[in-house]
Amino acid sequence: MVTGLDLKTVSIYAPVVDQLAQVEEQLHELCQTDIADLDPLLDYALRSGGKRVRPALTLLAAEFHPHERRRSQIMASAVELLHLATLIHDDTVDNAGMRRGKPTINNLYGNHVAVLLGDYLFATSATFVCDTEVIRVIRRFSETIMELASGQLIEFFTTFDPHKARRLYDERIYRKTASLFCTSAESGAILGNAPENEVQALRKYGHNIGMAFQIVDDLLDVQGDAAEIGKPVGNDLLQGVLTLPSIMLMERYPADHPIDSLFSAIKSGNGEVDDLLERSLAMINDSDIIPDCFATIRDYCTAAAAALDELPDCPPRRSLLQMVDYIRERTR
Amino acid sequence: MVTGLDLKTVSIYAPVVDQLAQVEEQLHELCQTDIADLDPLLDYALRSGGKRVRPALTLLAAEFHPHERRRSQIMASAVELLHLATLIHDDTVDNAGMRRGKPTINNLYGNHVAVLLGDYLFATSATFVCDTEVIRVIRRFSETIMELASGQLIEFFTTFDPHKARRLYDERIYRKTASLFCTSAESGAILGNAPENEVQALRKYGHNIGMAFQIVDDLLDVQGDAAEIGKPVGNDLLQGVLTLPSIMLMERYPADHPIDSLFSAIKSGNGEVDDLLERSLAMINDSDIIPDCFATIRDYCTAAAAALDELPDCPPRRSLLQMVDYIRERTR
Repeated sequence: MVTGLDLKTVSIYAPVVDQLAQVEEQLHELCQTDIADLDPLLDYALRSGGKRVRPALTLLAAEFHPHERRRSQIMASAVELLHLATLIHDDTVDNAGMRRGKPTINNLYGNHVAVLLGDYLFATSATFVCDTEVIRVIRRFSETIMELASGQLIEFFTTFDPHKARRLYDERIYRKTASLFCTSAESGAILGNAPENEVQALRKYGHNIGMAFQIVDDLLDVQGDAAEIGKPVGNDLLQGVLTLPSIMLMERYPADHPIDSLFSAIKSGNGEVDDLLERSLAMINDSDIIPDCFATIRDYCTAAAAALDELPDCPPRRSLLQMVDYIRERTR
Repeated sequence: MVTGLDLKTVSIYAPVVDQLAQVEEQLHELCQTDIADLDPLLDYALRSGGKRVRPALTLLAAEFHPHERRRSQIMASAVELLHLATLIHDDTVDNAGMRRGKPTINNLYGNHVAVLLGDYLFATSATFVCDTEVIRVIRRFSETIMELASGQLIEFFTTFDPHKARRLYDERIYRKTASLFCTSAESGAILGNAPENEVQALRKYGHNIGMAFQIVDDLLDVQGDAAEIGKPVGNDLLQGVLTLPSIMLMERYPADHPIDSLFSAIKSGNGEVDDLLERSLAMINDSDIIPDCFATIRDYCTAAAAALDELPDCPPRRSLLQMVDYIRERTR
């Protein structure tokens, strides 16, 4: 049984749920290395309780044609491993103490271990992909790691800079999030022996669902409460990271929004930070910004669903459409 | 012209010096990305002024048979990039401020940028290797990144623990250093169309020269002066890292060595650290430990040279033998 899945996701994953259990097994086998001190760390990092969306995407994208399942499963494990590696480094550079209600690796074991464990998992994921023995997929995977890292660097370069943050917003969320969704779907399709038009359609699906996914995540940070998402609300703004809702706030209320003052307060470390953050979040939540962000998410969902027109009706296609609906439902 | 090379290394590299210039060019081309803020960082990281030993090893190992030089050159660039990526993360986790007399990336730009830039370079190196289109080499490269990261983790797990440090010493220096020397030579041989016995011989050469190289480096930290090696002397001991000379000191003078006291002083942060460090370094330098470490280095050098018996006499073989002599000379 895959941990961390609710009934809804289990139903979406139905065509690949047994294969996802295999993926879980493959990840678990990594926790027996010949370095005794490493095993408990790996065990902790791999039991992250995530929804395993990316490996599900790979497995579903592979299911349209007869194929060697060993390869798509190893690829699915690799995309999940890569995702977990990025979380460890992201938490380290953000100095995050909690994720999904559990202490982060950097919190428990320090930045030193977190950097090196992340490196080890990046490399393990890349080694997994080599077992597919398909150069196109292996290269795409390495390029994706470049995109993930450069997406995080863009995020850093654009902190506290509204103009740059706006200009590079799409590029940033593509690189830091949608890129891996693209690659999860694309590599599944390639290893699933799909013809090129279907590979491109599934890649496009992955791109759009990934963009939607990131905006949902950005909204959670301005809307959710800390208990639900397992990390503090307003965390992005506190780090100087401008996301779609805060960018909209600055654009629509150039004279009234408190974000410039908030950033000044953060930089000078004065006591008004909490109050200014609360006012920023309240303005976002009391305006049309949330519905307009929802509309953007729905546009990406519509584009993702449209990409699937290229593919025949069958259980994996229905699952991919349900995945779109699952995201879309969160915008009501 | 390759930067950072003295006349001696230029003479050793003679058969591949033009190709090394191509490698330098390939590295330099990386500094033009589509992210303006990234380019100066890459430029700084890639102009490290190192001796380019690893790419030279790849190029020399490839030169024994006719082959497509484009592939061995891209491989040579990849091993150097990987080396530079590991330096960035090593400096970050060690909190090192200087390397080769220049401020480190983490010192100049902060840990946040250093972690992400290291990730980006790891991934770039892996993407380079894909251009060789040889799965065996690509897989070996990913496994090497796992070994490098796990070697650093072993170093961390064994800090301040003499028993563990001794037991895992060979494994640690293999993983953190010799592994990449192995892979540099082995992948050069494979891409150079060498028969399997020569691939194995060059791999063995790389292993032994890598082990020797790490012990030379460990000795520099107990012997050298700060100006010469560009970082403080005794740095390993201050971090709790036990290397061959300090392990020998503890084994040979179990009752008299000051290392247990030094470690206690470091942990409790009391003022005797400088004095105890100086006494530890003096005991190492005034005993037979240095000559005995030299003997170990020479044993590895002898094994490296012996591995080359498998190969025909020709300019690249003579260069590889000169490389052994270059290391051996430092033990006189």
